[in-house]
Amino acid sequence: MKPVFVTSNESKLREAAQILGVDLDRADLEVPEIQSLDFGEVAAAKARAAREALGAPSYPVIVDDSGLAIRAWGGFPGALTKWLMKSVGNAGLLKMLATEEDRSALAICVVAVAESSGSVQVFRGVVRGEVSREPRGDGGFGFDPILIPKGETRTYAEMGEEKSADSHRARALRAARHGLEKIW
Amino acid sequence: MKPVFVTSNESKLREAAQILGVDLDRADLEVPEIQSLDFGEVAAAKARAAREALGAPSYPVIVDDSGLAIRAWGGFPGALTKWLMKSVGNAGLLKMLATEEDRSALAICVVAVAESSGSVQVFRGVVRGEVSREPRGDGGFGFDPILIPKGETRTYAEMGEEKSADSHRARALRAARHGLEKIW
Repeated sequence: MKPVFVTSNESKLREAAQILGVDLDRADLEVPEIQSLDFGEVAAAKARAAREALGAPSYPVIVDDSGLAIRAWGGFPGALTKWLMKSVGNAGLLKMLATEEDRSALAICVVAVAESSGSVQVFRGVVRGEVSREPRGDGGFGFDPILIPKGETRTYAEMGEEKSADSHRARALRAARHGLEKIW
Repeated sequence: MKPVFVTSNESKLREAAQILGVDLDRADLEVPEIQSLDFGEVAAAKARAAREALGAPSYPVIVDDSGLAIRAWGGFPGALTKWLMKSVGNAGLLKMLATEEDRSALAICVVAVAESSGSVQVFRGVVRGEVSREPRGDGGFGFDPILIPKGETRTYAEMGEEKSADSHRARALRAARHGLEKIW
């Protein structure tokens, strides 16, 4: 009866268990996500759908979602980041952003928890940064090679393990730990 | 007991009734759409969700979805076009595409019909074209000011009423009329 984290990614599971300070089971579940730029809306619906797919269990069901909100693009691609990545990758994104002076972006992660009561809580982690001029570094995944967090000269991908200490995902998980500790 | 077309747009309803050759009722229904670049997948899920929201009626429920698939972007934004439009509009899209030589794009419309049996059929209309260098014309909506259909020098927005005769939406509706005529 442990809380379940919905992910196909073992290292995400370990990170979540460590930061939340609880044992977690993993569910490898394909849940359709709704179209929206808003991470909270997408993650809340995903948590509800995952809970339903698991048969409304008596333990909490946790999902996450993350992406990049680019200021010059009015926050796009936001919760739709993975589709832009699938289509054009980091190189394509940089080409699309080439003529913009303003490279500011937010790396955003949202963790949504569907409690056994059916209520859903959403926790957000945000890291300010900017989009690099070219992809740099071999570590990480997704947009890690093009995001330089504020106060750094390296991209997430160049920071390797150091990224995890205070990433947007770590911040969202810490927010969840604080918001949830009275419940579990 | 007429088929229902799910749209907030009266002129879409009229166009659909005219091309399908049947009387239609209109349902103004907000149905969450799933995240995917694939129009067929999005529209089929939307038709199912709309049918469910209407209480699984004994008449067909029709939805549509449309957007732009840009070749230089591997088909992006596809079924997610409206979110790119909401974020940056046509001017922003043109800026993102500014450094690309290849301006080819497909205007795609998908019409999905959920029958009273619960089965869903999907019909597709595609117009080849290219993305203009600047927005032109006052007619139409969405990406109409930046799409030049093949064989034209004008954008959809400059073509006004002429656009409707053979638009991606008209083509999808004609495909539906042919595919469905044995059923209604």
